[in-house]
Amino acid sequence: MLRLGQSLGSSRAKSKVSLESMQNNNSSGNDQKFQVRKLEVSDKSKGFIELLQQLSECDSVSDKEFEERFQELSSLGDDHVICVIEDDQLGKIIATGSVFIEKKFIRNCGKVGHIEDIVVDSNARGLQLGKKILGFLTEHARSKGCYKVILDCSAENKGFYEKCGFKQKEIQMVKYFI
Amino acid sequence: MLRLGQSLGSSRAKSKVSLESMQNNNSSGNDQKFQVRKLEVSDKSKGFIELLQQLSECDSVSDKEFEERFQELSSLGDDHVICVIEDDQLGKIIATGSVFIEKKFIRNCGKVGHIEDIVVDSNARGLQLGKKILGFLTEHARSKGCYKVILDCSAENKGFYEKCGFKQKEIQMVKYFI
Repeated sequence: MLRLGQSLGSSRAKSKVSLESMQNNNSSGNDQKFQVRKLEVSDKSKGFIELLQQLSECDSVSDKEFEERFQELSSLGDDHVICVIEDDQLGKIIATGSVFIEKKFIRNCGKVGHIEDIVVDSNARGLQLGKKILGFLTEHARSKGCYKVILDCSAENKGFYEKCGFKQKEIQMVKYFI
Repeated sequence: MLRLGQSLGSSRAKSKVSLESMQNNNSSGNDQKFQVRKLEVSDKSKGFIELLQQLSECDSVSDKEFEERFQELSSLGDDHVICVIEDDQLGKIIATGSVFIEKKFIRNCGKVGHIEDIVVDSNARGLQLGKKILGFLTEHARSKGCYKVILDCSAENKGFYEKCGFKQKEIQMVKYFI
């Protein structure tokens, strides 16, 4: 599942951009302020799980569970990357997304980047953070030799991804076990 | 990308089923004849790459390239499984599909099975081989604790997956690098 906030491009988000522009007076202020970096184990205490709860069901995850999953994913190296944006002033994670690289036989043993779980804090919409996260993940997949990057999204977020250079291709089918 | 043959459910496929039924006189004959198993390194010489060429671009893959990719994927163990059906009489791989397991933080550190690259040989349609492959991969994901299994398909194959218990959920977006 992958979802961007419903308020992307909404009037609320637009007001937030205007406010931010007034404060920074240029976009490079935002670029410096909101750097994309890889997830660190200490990000759990900076609201990483609470941010994910805005995307999907996610009960409280214990420190032990978090660290175990973090280590499992870290062991995959560049084949599974989770990135975040931290608001340094608040010491809070306000955006995240992940990409994992699938190795195939088709396309001459080609590789595909699967982008998942993009979420931007509801209080930080309109700052182009989703675009930054997506750009980071896409560039990671490209730099690792993927021939394409794919993601699934709701119809309402299609326009956002099209602005980022994506095109609709297929439909997603799902079967739940629980 | 994931595609099932366009002739699924076509009159050509139906005639093939009828012929097969006449030969076996019951479906258990087919069940015994077409067992699903995991990919083996020797399957390259049984037409595995040629089968994938019916799905997508795939130039000739050298034995060395095949073995390297095979080992890479094998090292992931149950987290990446490719299964095949071999026609024992012909010594030929006639159906395949894969599933890899993504480990997440959402859904309480949940796991999702991603089904990819299902293809049934154009000469073996109508024998329910796609359904068998899909069942094997779905059951693998369930047995490994995934809370759901997902796949992307073309609109024309939606009906097949619905018959197998899948439901349409989102749309797939793609960005190609080459």
